[in-house]
Amino acid sequence: METKRVVIVGGVAGGATCAARLRRLDESAEIVVLDRGEYVSFANCGLPYYVGDVIRDEEKLLLASPPLFRERFNIDVRTRHEVLAIDRVAGELVVRDLATDSEYREPYDALVLSPGAAPVRPPLPGVDLPGIFTLRSIPDSRDIRSWIASRKPRRAVVVGGGFIGLEMAENLANRGIKITIVEMMNQLMPPLDMEMAEYVHEHLYACGVRLHMGDGIAGFELSDRGDLVVRTQAGAAIESDLVILAMGVRPETKLAREAGLEIGERGGIRVDAQMRTSDPRIWAVGDAVEVRNAVTGLCELIPLAGPANRQARVAADAICGRTTRFRGVEGTAVCGTLGLTVALTGATEKALHRSGMKGFRAVWLHASQHVGYYPGAQPIHMKLLFRAADGLVLGAQAVGREGVERRIDAIALAIQMKATVFDLEEAELCYAPPYGAAKDPVNLAGMVAANVLRGDVDLAPWGELGATDAFLLDVRDPQEFLADSVDGAVNIPLGELRARIAELPQDREIWISCGVGQRAYYACRILTQHGLSARNLSGGYQTYRVLYPEGVAQPCVC
Amino acid sequence: METKRVVIVGGVAGGATCAARLRRLDESAEIVVLDRGEYVSFANCGLPYYVGDVIRDEEKLLLASPPLFRERFNIDVRTRHEVLAIDRVAGELVVRDLATDSEYREPYDALVLSPGAAPVRPPLPGVDLPGIFTLRSIPDSRDIRSWIASRKPRRAVVVGGGFIGLEMAENLANRGIKITIVEMMNQLMPPLDMEMAEYVHEHLYACGVRLHMGDGIAGFELSDRGDLVVRTQAGAAIESDLVILAMGVRPETKLAREAGLEIGERGGIRVDAQMRTSDPRIWAVGDAVEVRNAVTGLCELIPLAGPANRQARVAADAICGRTTRFRGVEGTAVCGTLGLTVALTGATEKALHRSGMKGFRAVWLHASQHVGYYPGAQPIHMKLLFRAADGLVLGAQAVGREGVERRIDAIALAIQMKATVFDLEEAELCYAPPYGAAKDPVNLAGMVAANVLRGDVDLAPWGELGATDAFLLDVRDPQEFLADSVDGAVNIPLGELRARIAELPQDREIWISCGVGQRAYYACRILTQHGLSARNLSGGYQTYRVLYPEGVAQPCVC
Repeated sequence: METKRVVIVGGVAGGATCAARLRRLDESAEIVVLDRGEYVSFANCGLPYYVGDVIRDEEKLLLASPPLFRERFNIDVRTRHEVLAIDRVAGELVVRDLATDSEYREPYDALVLSPGAAPVRPPLPGVDLPGIFTLRSIPDSRDIRSWIASRKPRRAVVVGGGFIGLEMAENLANRGIKITIVEMMNQLMPPLDMEMAEYVHEHLYACGVRLHMGDGIAGFELSDRGDLVVRTQAGAAIESDLVILAMGVRPETKLAREAGLEIGERGGIRVDAQMRTSDPRIWAVGDAVEVRNAVTGLCELIPLAGPANRQARVAADAICGRTTRFRGVEGTAVCGTLGLTVALTGATEKALHRSGMKGFRAVWLHASQHVGYYPGAQPIHMKLLFRAADGLVLGAQAVGREGVERRIDAIALAIQMKATVFDLEEAELCYAPPYGAAKDPVNLAGMVAANVLRGDVDLAPWGELGATDAFLLDVRDPQEFLADSVDGAVNIPLGELRARIAELPQDREIWISCGVGQRAYYACRILTQHGLSARNLSGGYQTYRVLYPEGVAQPCVC
Repeated sequence: METKRVVIVGGVAGGATCAARLRRLDESAEIVVLDRGEYVSFANCGLPYYVGDVIRDEEKLLLASPPLFRERFNIDVRTRHEVLAIDRVAGELVVRDLATDSEYREPYDALVLSPGAAPVRPPLPGVDLPGIFTLRSIPDSRDIRSWIASRKPRRAVVVGGGFIGLEMAENLANRGIKITIVEMMNQLMPPLDMEMAEYVHEHLYACGVRLHMGDGIAGFELSDRGDLVVRTQAGAAIESDLVILAMGVRPETKLAREAGLEIGERGGIRVDAQMRTSDPRIWAVGDAVEVRNAVTGLCELIPLAGPANRQARVAADAICGRTTRFRGVEGTAVCGTLGLTVALTGATEKALHRSGMKGFRAVWLHASQHVGYYPGAQPIHMKLLFRAADGLVLGAQAVGREGVERRIDAIALAIQMKATVFDLEEAELCYAPPYGAAKDPVNLAGMVAANVLRGDVDLAPWGELGATDAFLLDVRDPQEFLADSVDGAVNIPLGELRARIAELPQDREIWISCGVGQRAYYACRILTQHGLSARNLSGGYQTYRVLYPEGVAQPCVC
């Protein structure tokens, strides 16, 4: 048997994983990894925390060095080697050794592209001024650390409120820097449904972070005193001592495009379920490829480490003749920012709309991470999406201080296994007072949804709140009602409802709200059994305040 | 339609949940709850934390009072009403009102028994001495609090090292009391496999808790100075200022037995999948009933709040004509003790042996709760059990400081959904550096197991380590090897393995160990591809030290 020669372009995450897996599967293969950077197999997810000095030792970010690859895996890793072109006919790469500035050709039997994605850095006026950074590599983070050490910035602007933006906001804020986040959309964390992002806005605002949303960047300049000034399209001028551009990433597809490999509709390299490109000898993995969303069926660019890792294993398996298939992505993700955790899995409501999927429902809930009587209970704001026909779980989003990622993990596994809300209802999860509740938030999410599907309670459409002529009933206690309530609601506390049923209209729908949705559910059960037409405003006041943060006139979702 | 009269005996957890659910389903039913205690719907799981002064306000433990039941649910709750007998023919209960010491008969159309379980308090000499307590009710915890307040105990003996014992150990230790745990078995946390319990022993020992295992209690007496003395069967005498009996619970079946209801093989009330007893008008839920283990098929007494809640809903549904079925229990449970979390779901190895199930495999791993480069990484010691034929996940146990319950929850959901280790491998879970790793411990557990089933690596049987003539190879670095290693192992670091392959025997099996199992897996792949017969000692040295805590002569498991 002939020795197989596998060349991998890009030695971070996907590339390094693929190389190691290849070696485990085939002790005899020749494996070469080429990377134009100085480092391979470094922890790119850790860079914000290195900037934030949470990780203090740069060495810790280097997960494996070229000598380790050589010694442990018998893999030839060449850093500062840039691949200039793929000669698909000859089965060769044109490579430049950046150290010697010489070029050579490298033959392959199988080629794996793992070039990753580059931070977006739009060609705005002044974008190259000193103090404006993107963050992708160890040298990038070193540059920001040096800037902080030498300039001691008091103020920073983070452009972009996605995962990296929020992680950078946390890390810079923890170094005592006052943060302004500028985000073109009118919400942070663009993957979230807008009302769920509102909890993030509230939290960051309470942490002293300035949010400047719904406005793009026009350019950067220096003030007379030499300070950076961020100019926005709406005309704002924000002085800053440091700017981080966290405007998303773009897949690195130049090499693939120039080699004539097929590119997908979203601009990533197109691959099949075995991560093979349109050339049968070339595979591609990681942030540069398009993958199918397992829930919506949409093609997506999902720059996440977990899926990149799985893809790398699939590609290695395929090269070694195994038939492993990539099952697509759910888009499970988590982000921590200043004590808040934001996590999601599966489809959001906006993704479902984008995919054209119909017949789904949403419920909101606000259960604590553990029983209320154990100290430190904090709400987890959660939204669950499911198919009305059969209760199939489609997606979940959660925001809170503790236990958020745990609930999203359980639901991620549920989605993977095609579980329904009836399964969530019945899930048997860890409970002791410091850890949860006999009815875990995951159970409650299932129960709330299952109650709808069983016909035990009907949901009122939050989006029509401003336009409805339904009777709005608030069943909380008077002191809760007086603090704030759904606009136009009438208060009858749950405990008085049976006695005061005659006060309610017989000929109109009654939309019921409470604090988080539970008492309204009880009220719905009472009223419908008394022949009235009652519907629950899911999640109650805690949902209302984020759906209608500026009053009932401007519904945020439908 | 006639009004239905439902009477519920026992108003904690199951009883209270059942009552509230009944009301939601049937606004017209008459619902009566009888409880011989002073309180209903109190948080019995919270009692250890009330004793520990973590929960300071007794009111917080009262989740719902009789007036709230009346007002919100129109339910007639009668505390201090003891049910003396069930007259099944007449459909009536004989009830004593403890306040007036009068008896009356209470008719029912449907009866729900939710009597719970009582702490075991064996009739040992001196068991009624002052300062010896069990913990089931609010008055019990109040008594212990008073004893602590007045006597200021410096030393406590906790008899029994299960869930309640360990929670009490934590809570008393946190009040500055020196703890000795006496446990009849030679391990704490009896549900765990013994080697997994060893991590608990290590932790408690490091926290200064004295462990006295493998010895039962002979009796209690007072010393000349008036101190309590706990005498053990082996002859030890342990002085103490306070004794907590946490020796497990026994289902309260007296009423059911006397009424001639069928009792199961484990001594609990026998019920069908709708929680109906052998009398078609009587249901039973909670700690007093026997349920089927969803994994092993065994009948079990599982005194857990989550299943009790689900059972209560099922019984209420059945009474209202719905066909909801109880799907059995997985036995998911969690316990926190002095900073350590212990959790499990599904079957343990010993439960599988007990059930007679064959053809399962076990793997061990020791992955961190998050990436190692983010500060604070701590191992989660995990054991995964799966069916060899198809990889069906059968159970998992985990012990660690952080993120333990999260991984067990994900695996609990996997077991519920009949997932395989191949599904765990592919699970897409939350990852960012503070939260996990691109390969989460759940993924790694799946991968380690799937590698075995795919034939990529063979496992050596840990239990035969003392008897094998296999060549024992340790592929860690020399300084790790020198610190401690599997007895009789020879060290060749992984990085030198390819060059030194000739040093290994061609004609003997080679059993390979490392730190946690990863390098040994790599080594297995290298050696088997070079034609040698290599097997991995799953989990490496971190498994070895708990399987053989006192050296290789005494294997703990097979």
